[in-house]
Amino acid sequence: MDTSAEKTPVRLAIVGLGKIARDQHLPAIAATPGFTVAAVASRNAALDGVPHFPTIEALLEGAPDVEAVALCTPPQVRRAQAAAALAAGKHVLLEKPPGATVGELAPLAAAATASGRTLFATWHSRFAAAVEPARAFLAEHAVRSVTITWKEDVRVWHPGQGWIWEPGGLGVFDPGINALSILTRILPRPVFLTAAELSFPANRQAPIAADLNFTDEAGTPIRAEFDFRQTGPQSWDIRVVTDDGVLTLSHGGARLDHDGRSLVDGTDAEYTGIYRHFAGLIARGASDVDALPLSLVADAFLLGRRRSVEPFED
Amino acid sequence: MDTSAEKTPVRLAIVGLGKIARDQHLPAIAATPGFTVAAVASRNAALDGVPHFPTIEALLEGAPDVEAVALCTPPQVRRAQAAAALAAGKHVLLEKPPGATVGELAPLAAAATASGRTLFATWHSRFAAAVEPARAFLAEHAVRSVTITWKEDVRVWHPGQGWIWEPGGLGVFDPGINALSILTRILPRPVFLTAAELSFPANRQAPIAADLNFTDEAGTPIRAEFDFRQTGPQSWDIRVVTDDGVLTLSHGGARLDHDGRSLVDGTDAEYTGIYRHFAGLIARGASDVDALPLSLVADAFLLGRRRSVEPFED
Repeated sequence: MDTSAEKTPVRLAIVGLGKIARDQHLPAIAATPGFTVAAVASRNAALDGVPHFPTIEALLEGAPDVEAVALCTPPQVRRAQAAAALAAGKHVLLEKPPGATVGELAPLAAAATASGRTLFATWHSRFAAAVEPARAFLAEHAVRSVTITWKEDVRVWHPGQGWIWEPGGLGVFDPGINALSILTRILPRPVFLTAAELSFPANRQAPIAADLNFTDEAGTPIRAEFDFRQTGPQSWDIRVVTDDGVLTLSHGGARLDHDGRSLVDGTDAEYTGIYRHFAGLIARGASDVDALPLSLVADAFLLGRRRSVEPFED
Repeated sequence: MDTSAEKTPVRLAIVGLGKIARDQHLPAIAATPGFTVAAVASRNAALDGVPHFPTIEALLEGAPDVEAVALCTPPQVRRAQAAAALAAGKHVLLEKPPGATVGELAPLAAAATASGRTLFATWHSRFAAAVEPARAFLAEHAVRSVTITWKEDVRVWHPGQGWIWEPGGLGVFDPGINALSILTRILPRPVFLTAAELSFPANRQAPIAADLNFTDEAGTPIRAEFDFRQTGPQSWDIRVVTDDGVLTLSHGGARLDHDGRSLVDGTDAEYTGIYRHFAGLIARGASDVDALPLSLVADAFLLGRRRSVEPFED
């Protein structure tokens, strides 16, 4: 059967050609049938052989055959870019977090619905190999407690990314929200915050560490420690004590152990999963916008006790 | 026609007999057919001739014929009280803000639905006399800009209310959220935050002043100034420039002027409106839980630039 007509790749533009676009998006797009990189918008960076524009407005004007955009810019500027792209009839993929506020997402989702275009607010960690197996396990077992340990060296993972310390940049919640995106996917019941302590460097507008307590209607204790000051071994682990042993997601959700026995030992395929899902959403004319992880972070800023800690210099 | 059977008043308990309960709830309940105060739970205060309990747990145990509870306690403790009351089969009215986080509301609403009980997250300012007339006007006219000025003297309105300065107490957003509850009711389009500056007293965990910029999909400029340090004249005003003159809600939404001509000059009847609505919800077996004003405040804490200002001593 010849289905080549259906297989014409979607002409995709990358907006914001920074670290995440180069490290993750470009390799994943290259590995995913269904997309071709047709243009780039970036103030400073360019891609050999691909039409380049300094801004998304110039791109929308100058490359009208682009069908979809992947917004890899900092969250503070993403809403306006997404609104412009949707207004121009493009499908839109948002890097995480999907924006600078929770409130901006509902109007964007409504605009996508009204224009018949796809809006996909991605949570890359939900595509890690162990997440769906963990979800399936927890659907069948009672959860006794959860401990999240998400500690990394900001100098290694976010070199020179000043936006992360600005209002809306989330600080340590930029990685921490990955853990929350997994947590809210694998647990059968909604969780909510009960207490938080946020450590702000004296010279910064975003926290460098956070201790969070969540629970659910059953009173399950759920504890999270986020820290950007980790040197040496890095930790991206979620430990779930159940009525049938301990489930441990490690390496950001790539690996799953049950009482020490390995169930999943995956390689990093998060972004190929993202682009496969994006292709499916476009084909179905659907959107996928889940604000919940960002809303939990907003709650942490709302309820969190603030302490001032030593200044952070990049 | 004898409808006395339908008119049996709902046996209501007040939980938290503080300033708001005495100033607003008790007079409104006395003025509203359909409710009778059957019990009080309060650590320190009591009401002559009404059964008294030290905690809501003791009340639920000791006054099983109570049918509904009004939670007038600080927001930080309200979720657990609401969950306990719903689990005991009571209807629940929440003072504003409805809780300490946005995330805690969805499970409460689900519990109310599951138990067939009413959960009513009140926003008293939405019952001010000019709010519905303003909404009707704005449904028919284009909005050019909105300016909110919400400035009051915290020492007058919140004497000794230490909880307001604690995490989850909201500081100046405790009154400011009233303005946001009106704004989100009267505007035809959803609004979202684009920038915020929050002034935190050096010795407090909640802001004493806030400058907020909102907009909507049409790009309407919406500005709000909240300040707890106002002495002299107090301001609770919302000014809306439209394609047909200027609409001004003043006195917290009790009065409405159109280009200087008075359209509404209401007296304070917010809490009687609340209890009439609560009675209607109970009669219909419905709930009313709108988290949006609190979500906008959470966004302000998430995105807001923080500045430290002089310590506040009560």
